[in-house]
Amino acid sequence: MLSISQKKYVNSLKQKKFRTQCNCFVVEGIKMIEELLQSDYEIESIFATSSWIENNNSVDCIEISEKELNSISSLKTPNEVIAVAKQMDSQLIDVSSELTIALDKIQDPGNFGTIIRTADWFGIKNIVCSEDSVDAYNSKVIQATMGSFFRVNIVYTNLNEFFSKNSDLTVYGALLDGENVYKKQLKHKGTVLLMGNESKGISEDLISYITDRVSIPKFGNAESLNIATATAILCSECKRV
Amino acid sequence: MLSISQKKYVNSLKQKKFRTQCNCFVVEGIKMIEELLQSDYEIESIFATSSWIENNNSVDCIEISEKELNSISSLKTPNEVIAVAKQMDSQLIDVSSELTIALDKIQDPGNFGTIIRTADWFGIKNIVCSEDSVDAYNSKVIQATMGSFFRVNIVYTNLNEFFSKNSDLTVYGALLDGENVYKKQLKHKGTVLLMGNESKGISEDLISYITDRVSIPKFGNAESLNIATATAILCSECKRV
Repeated sequence: MLSISQKKYVNSLKQKKFRTQCNCFVVEGIKMIEELLQSDYEIESIFATSSWIENNNSVDCIEISEKELNSISSLKTPNEVIAVAKQMDSQLIDVSSELTIALDKIQDPGNFGTIIRTADWFGIKNIVCSEDSVDAYNSKVIQATMGSFFRVNIVYTNLNEFFSKNSDLTVYGALLDGENVYKKQLKHKGTVLLMGNESKGISEDLISYITDRVSIPKFGNAESLNIATATAILCSECKRV
Repeated sequence: MLSISQKKYVNSLKQKKFRTQCNCFVVEGIKMIEELLQSDYEIESIFATSSWIENNNSVDCIEISEKELNSISSLKTPNEVIAVAKQMDSQLIDVSSELTIALDKIQDPGNFGTIIRTADWFGIKNIVCSEDSVDAYNSKVIQATMGSFFRVNIVYTNLNEFFSKNSDLTVYGALLDGENVYKKQLKHKGTVLLMGNESKGISEDLISYITDRVSIPKFGNAESLNIATATAILCSECKRV
């Protein structure tokens, strides 16, 4: 049974303000909770329907009805279980020997989540975001990662400072007038792939940190590629040998 | 001024049933209407605020208020103008000498729209979808294409029949156990890239039409890539020489 205060609490976490205040976030659905349970994230509470509890009887949780689940879910089709977990401070790991993704002012949660999933596929450990990027603990971001959220380090920082501190890295900047990536072997060690905002591209003040301007050749008429799509193609180009 | 029946009509087109019945669909926003006006699509009506009309005074349209725009928009942030256009019957063009994308039961409108945008970027003329795929005239599909919708032929058909009729084509099937695409030069003429449903993959009855099982190497731990992401990487692999 879900108390009124629990309902209020979980629903409040849909807003960044309250997530930051409580240092918590929400995870939904069978697959995502399975990944959460395997991760290092500390779980505060799990709300689940009887069907989920039957299959996970060793997990400590609060039984709720389908109707109660609906009242706290952000999904169109709620999926048996919702958890509240503690946010964690991520640290960048081995940037000097890894491929890192840098996101400048990314705004769309679906795009961000898809990029995290792509990073996990390509074994990319770190994503560094400008401080004005969308919150990674936004439920749409988390759901779009399909579980990859728990395996990639996401760090918010001042990108100017990040690039200044890591001036020995090769920085690939995705620009429409960059060098054809099909004619260039991109590296995947000690490199950063810098992607700009969905509509405005890379900020002026970050352009000077780019060591290699790169571009995905265009054969048709679209003005640009979706940012998650472009990031994926460029990650693939870095990883293909 | 927006009449009650106009409001009712535009809102009804959010549902596939009414779109099919009226053979119409809705397009929103400055950029999209600009692309619509340049396309071959027949426009039934345009509803616009005074700010849009000021910049487009040669276009025939009905002036509405911001509030009226809000009452018929599907967007969180309505953008000056909404049009109703007639659906068109698309025809596949030059399949035997082109790269075609085949989508089996694609469900997510955002993914579908992103794939259409990617197709337009890579100069892919045709997308063929199974009949149970999401409706291309869904407003979320149209908006995610960022204007590419008007430049790509989208045809719904029985994919079994399509592959039977086009048995001379090379069919790349994206499968987790396929051949490493980095070690294989994919072709972009007389080829079809077959992508499966977001959660279920390629249908059993279509597997036999695949001539080349292909796969994007995995370096990390994600179970799969987003379908729009995977499609983009594979299109890029076909187009890179």
